Amino acid sequence: MSLNRDELIKAVSEQMPPQRWKHTEGVMQTAVVLAERFGADPVKADLAAILHDVAKYWPVKEMEKIIRENNLNQDLLLHDKQLWHSEVGAFVAEHDYKVTDPEVLSAIKWHTSGRVGMSLLDKVVCLADYMEPGRDFPGVDRIRELAEHSLEEALLAGFDGTITHLVSQRKVIYPLTIFTRNDLIEQIKLMGKSNTFKIGG
Amino acid sequence: MSLNRDELIKAVSEQMPPQRWKHTEGVMQTAVVLAERFGADPVKADLAAILHDVAKYWPVKEMEKIIRENNLNQDLLLHDKQLWHSEVGAFVAEHDYKVTDPEVLSAIKWHTSGRVGMSLLDKVVCLADYMEPGRDFPGVDRIRELAEHSLEEALLAGFDGTITHLVSQRKVIYPLTIFTRNDLIEQIKLMGKSNTFKIGG
Repeated sequence: MSLNRDELIKAVSEQMPPQRWKHTEGVMQTAVVLAERFGADPVKADLAAILHDVAKYWPVKEMEKIIRENNLNQDLLLHDKQLWHSEVGAFVAEHDYKVTDPEVLSAIKWHTSGRVGMSLLDKVVCLADYMEPGRDFPGVDRIRELAEHSLEEALLAGFDGTITHLVSQRKVIYPLTIFTRNDLIEQIKLMGKSNTFKIGG
Repeated sequence: MSLNRDELIKAVSEQMPPQRWKHTEGVMQTAVVLAERFGADPVKADLAAILHDVAKYWPVKEMEKIIRENNLNQDLLLHDKQLWHSEVGAFVAEHDYKVTDPEVLSAIKWHTSGRVGMSLLDKVVCLADYMEPGRDFPGVDRIRELAEHSLEEALLAGFDGTITHLVSQRKVIYPLTIFTRNDLIEQIKLMGKSNTFKIGG
């Protein structure tokens, strides 16, 4: 990376309204806490958190251009524009900010939809985005409670809330969200089988 | 078909408990009403309804064998066994009961998950299965109300209820259910655009 952390923060924060930057600061703080709690790398979590919403307020046309011209996931163009900034953000992190760490780029890229087989860092950043202190939606306290003990249980509660919300709003559900959620259920089942002695403990 | 309607009813009803056959009779009755209401063929709706649950109480091993040996959708084997009887039912309808009409076979095959681009008959049978008089679950009355005017709105309410239920039960969601639901939302949007003068009328 050619910028130091302070320079990066300055550059990224200038690309969004102050309120959204405040959200990013919450995600940075929470991602580091979660990384330390669950054994991910806090420096990588911090870096991914700084950059996760870098493209969130970019003009739609600009995001569309990047997706089209760089052969990113074209399927995104058929779905809600809210999903575009994650994949575009990972591209911008790599090309404009010279982030080379594939784990960090992955955590940025999948922070909205998740993916099947999320890495530890993917989970930390995605969950931090759901539950940073500024978030206030029905169910967020339950997510924070679950996050005391289980990344997967907390993330599942997050995605379940998203799905229920989209259903109630008659909005299209991005299929990957369902694949991610189903995968988390399978992961939790497998953990239950190998860790039954930990239940309640 | 080599059996007449009475013979078919006798043969199919013997493959399930009396209570499930009562459900099938409800689906038959409702499918004919819906077919007449929305312009589908009531004779085809009746035939698909008679056969839709023919394999519902077959042994799981038997269904699995049919799916494996006849190159049916192998992906089903990775998902809930409750989904298997629809595809197996269509196979049985064709091979054991000599149903040749592709519209009827399709309505049997897709009656649980739906599919993207459901035919009119697919919708009628799937909706009848949701709302036949014996059904009693939260939201069924709303589905019946919507079905007075719109197959798609009523089906969307049905699938939304299924999705919300699966989320609340921590059960895996079959992805096709989501694709079907998303497709219904798109269909309703398109109808809205071409029929705005009909709103409220």
